[in-house]
Amino acid sequence: MTKPKTQEPVITSTSELPTSEAKWVTLRKVNYTDQTGAARTWEVASRKTRAKSAGVDAVAMGNVILHPARAPATVVVIQYRPPLDAYTVEWPAGLIDEGESAEDAAVREFKEEIGYDCEVTSVSPVQAADPGMSDANMKLVMVEVKLGEEDGEELPVQRLEDGEHIQRVVVPLTELYQRLVEWSEGERKIVAAKLFHFAAGMEFARKEGKKYGL
Amino acid sequence: MTKPKTQEPVITSTSELPTSEAKWVTLRKVNYTDQTGAARTWEVASRKTRAKSAGVDAVAMGNVILHPARAPATVVVIQYRPPLDAYTVEWPAGLIDEGESAEDAAVREFKEEIGYDCEVTSVSPVQAADPGMSDANMKLVMVEVKLGEEDGEELPVQRLEDGEHIQRVVVPLTELYQRLVEWSEGERKIVAAKLFHFAAGMEFARKEGKKYGL
Repeated sequence: MTKPKTQEPVITSTSELPTSEAKWVTLRKVNYTDQTGAARTWEVASRKTRAKSAGVDAVAMGNVILHPARAPATVVVIQYRPPLDAYTVEWPAGLIDEGESAEDAAVREFKEEIGYDCEVTSVSPVQAADPGMSDANMKLVMVEVKLGEEDGEELPVQRLEDGEHIQRVVVPLTELYQRLVEWSEGERKIVAAKLFHFAAGMEFARKEGKKYGL
Repeated sequence: MTKPKTQEPVITSTSELPTSEAKWVTLRKVNYTDQTGAARTWEVASRKTRAKSAGVDAVAMGNVILHPARAPATVVVIQYRPPLDAYTVEWPAGLIDEGESAEDAAVREFKEEIGYDCEVTSVSPVQAADPGMSDANMKLVMVEVKLGEEDGEELPVQRLEDGEHIQRVVVPLTELYQRLVEWSEGERKIVAAKLFHFAAGMEFARKEGKKYGL
């Protein structure tokens, strides 16, 4: 198999997309009566792909990679995201398919994007992705990968869909926050808010824990 | 001044919103060339309100309320969000106005929504709010409020815009994660992903810190 030539992705054109022609996202106008009885409106962006069975758009996999001889770490993915024309740093994530549970989607997507089998350790309640603007929602599924002495540092083979180009980086948990800050300073890179907030919360507890009695 | 009668907000109708009629959000079609040279397209939802000066849509205020006699706490806001037809639990947040810095917007919005003057302790890099779907971005501004012995538990007066109805709840930092989980189980309530992820990261460090050497 010949490895495809890689080049920097580039936006060739953008145009206003009429709602009636959009396949993946849509705009809705919501008319509502507020707390005082006043009639108001709100503009909402939605995904058109939500699986009815789960009632949730997506899962993100907060992951811990354990190895007998290495520091506990996490895998983040770096990929070109056309909405931002930049490479984002995120935890692996994906949309939930029809008939799938959040757990199933997490294990499947983690295997596809990262290559490891994982164990689910917790599933969060439903969270609102960007509540001022959209009804997109997600669950954070925490997963663990237990490697053995024999497992090297090389990551297993990914099973990506056509058009997916996902770089994986293993980062020790104690270095995660600092690495995210450094990536943010890099050219054409932006960290996803959910991952950044988790890392910031972890760092806050580690650094300010004594001061604030955490 | 008569306090306005409050009632449960209710959606009276929703309709597809043509892109050409939308004032706050829009849809764009991005044509791009990927890493292999293949021509691809992506559908993107955007805000139309980004201030050119800051280049960032919004700020969220991760806040710590300090009082000599009380446990370190944070204020979250609960408000009806028409996109979700639910009450969201979030950190106070707002859009950055033209000519404003992220810091300025954070101090202004915190005063408006919460009523306290605050001090900025850190400003995050730009983060992507929901990178698979939109180019919306934000900065997390950490702020601190230092109260005196004389300050009671009652919160100061808010300065809300017409149509804003924002409930404030002060939560000790050590209880934040558990409270978010409990709220998520409540009727018509959903926690915003950014706040949930920060709290989950804090809880992870507190509870799993020893196990993972954090």
